Amino acid sequence: MSRITNFSAGPATLPLTVLEQVQEELLDWRGSGMSVMEMSHRDKEFMSIASEAEKDLREVAGIPQNYKVLFMQGGATAQFALIPLNLLRGKAGADYVLTGDWGKKALKEAGKYGKASVAATGEAGKFTSIPDRAGWKLDPDAAYVHITTNETIHGVQFQSTPDVGGVPLVADMSSDILSRPIEVSKFGLIYGGAQKNIGPAGVTIVIVREDLIGQASAMTPNVFDYKQAADNESMLNTPPCFAWYVSGLVFKWIKDNGGLAGVGARNQAKAKRLYDYIDSQDFYRNPVAKADRSVMNVPFTLANAELDADFLKGAKAAGLSGLKGHRAVGGMRASLYNAMTEQGVAQLVDYMKEFARTKG
Amino acid sequence: MSRITNFSAGPATLPLTVLEQVQEELLDWRGSGMSVMEMSHRDKEFMSIASEAEKDLREVAGIPQNYKVLFMQGGATAQFALIPLNLLRGKAGADYVLTGDWGKKALKEAGKYGKASVAATGEAGKFTSIPDRAGWKLDPDAAYVHITTNETIHGVQFQSTPDVGGVPLVADMSSDILSRPIEVSKFGLIYGGAQKNIGPAGVTIVIVREDLIGQASAMTPNVFDYKQAADNESMLNTPPCFAWYVSGLVFKWIKDNGGLAGVGARNQAKAKRLYDYIDSQDFYRNPVAKADRSVMNVPFTLANAELDADFLKGAKAAGLSGLKGHRAVGGMRASLYNAMTEQGVAQLVDYMKEFARTKG
Repeated sequence: MSRITNFSAGPATLPLTVLEQVQEELLDWRGSGMSVMEMSHRDKEFMSIASEAEKDLREVAGIPQNYKVLFMQGGATAQFALIPLNLLRGKAGADYVLTGDWGKKALKEAGKYGKASVAATGEAGKFTSIPDRAGWKLDPDAAYVHITTNETIHGVQFQSTPDVGGVPLVADMSSDILSRPIEVSKFGLIYGGAQKNIGPAGVTIVIVREDLIGQASAMTPNVFDYKQAADNESMLNTPPCFAWYVSGLVFKWIKDNGGLAGVGARNQAKAKRLYDYIDSQDFYRNPVAKADRSVMNVPFTLANAELDADFLKGAKAAGLSGLKGHRAVGGMRASLYNAMTEQGVAQLVDYMKEFARTKG
Repeated sequence: MSRITNFSAGPATLPLTVLEQVQEELLDWRGSGMSVMEMSHRDKEFMSIASEAEKDLREVAGIPQNYKVLFMQGGATAQFALIPLNLLRGKAGADYVLTGDWGKKALKEAGKYGKASVAATGEAGKFTSIPDRAGWKLDPDAAYVHITTNETIHGVQFQSTPDVGGVPLVADMSSDILSRPIEVSKFGLIYGGAQKNIGPAGVTIVIVREDLIGQASAMTPNVFDYKQAADNESMLNTPPCFAWYVSGLVFKWIKDNGGLAGVGARNQAKAKRLYDYIDSQDFYRNPVAKADRSVMNVPFTLANAELDADFLKGAKAAGLSGLKGHRAVGGMRASLYNAMTEQGVAQLVDYMKEFARTKG
């Protein structure tokens, strides 16, 4: 076995100790005689896996008791529709703050179910900064205000939680959930696909304040009605059991590694190492405003785009993968999710230095 | 490691060789240096896993070229809503044939999106037989006719594909998909959650005739629009990659085990062994009409329900699990999905005989 250093934007690298535990338990989960994949979701074995995962997530993220935690299916993209279906609550529309392509997709989908308004957008600046809060045009009667806390493609991230007054703040945290401490009580709803910081693709975490649910549109599929999901502990039907289980192991790994404070500090250190190097020279460049740079996804371009293929080929030979940037911005992107080690980032910077020295 | 003989109705037992391969590849899929859980769904490694799984499924099930194969999320319960959203195509409603509780759930959900009519129901007979085809009240203008080919709770199964004329036949095959040869061309749409005969919970297979898609209701979430899913090869967003991968290994296992003809013959033999024993004595009883008995799920009651707990306790001690019947019908249920071995069924019958001898 030879493991690579995986900078993929998602699905992404997972903690090796978690994968080793999954491997060890794969044919016989703790003396049950079954794989987790083979357990009835109604059996006490899986019920214990599920409830322990929720308990650990609540502990790790500091989720208050008046918030429901749902383990759903369909990814954040399904939530782009399910949020307006569940949260419009008879109101005319909602406000969207756009800081990248994911927010634009969320806006477009919401427009099918109500009035989706752009309260602010960074598009004129090619999404290289977060629009100044003072300029946001918020409707006090909006059902909610939607933000994307981290935009994976553009590498732009909110560094603090914006104050939007009494309107519920809804956040797509797909790519930075559990990467740093979260002030859950400042949000009405937090959601994210698991496949960056939590676990395998196929489970979506929704954390929602309980007073906001129970007024879903009649058009909402039952299984995607937050109230129904909450009342049935995310088991109105068979949940994505295996992904739920692996997510639970990751929650324990976070607990064992200093919680979100510890994880957050390491993530800051990893990102600082890479940004500091990028800012120290002219061969690589990151276009994002320093105050809004993502700690999770670091896009960068080479001085000469014709060297991109060479860079990727050499990276692969050096055991570094998943560095190709998104086609929307080009160049490279290094994703530094929780499971990326500090050593991995050091290897990347060393490789970048060597590449710049020989090709620059 | 000690494996039990698992008769769970789903999630259910998987082929041991498949689980062993998953275990072996868990930290490093075939020299990629990554777990399948860590691969970008856009990378060539996962693309090859995904396309090979579809190719093998098409081969195993004999799926004609004019059918799309989708790997979706949300389970059959999500499809209960997504089928009317996608397939009503401006028509007023659809016909439902009820042969158990799952069909009733599908009917209820469809009623949110259009007129959902009961064309026939076996409820008066407590769902112990399939309503005679001659008595079905079908509307020739219906958007589709919906059946549940196998009802897991009641143990009732269609043994042939009903002729419904020119109206597309839609079948929930969650609990018998790939358990026997399928005449795909007789259906407009076939769907099923993976967690019985295919793989881990979290991926839903939809096989749909291509002329039926492209007219989804405007209220359909993008990611659940069959046309969008088909055009994007089920990767409009991140799919449930790991469940897709395991499903692919199961498709290969079916190929290696005689295809659906071989699997179907073994399933018949397994069910015959159990039903023959049940019919040979008076201590255990199955209430379903012989012609409509499920090859997949065999519910049975003990002559004295007070012995149920003893039966389950003794079964567990004998290494037989998942036998408790659904609360709706009581008693026991043995699910004999593809991965249940003939030896496992023999063990169960031996245990039943011994229990009846000592307690009967």
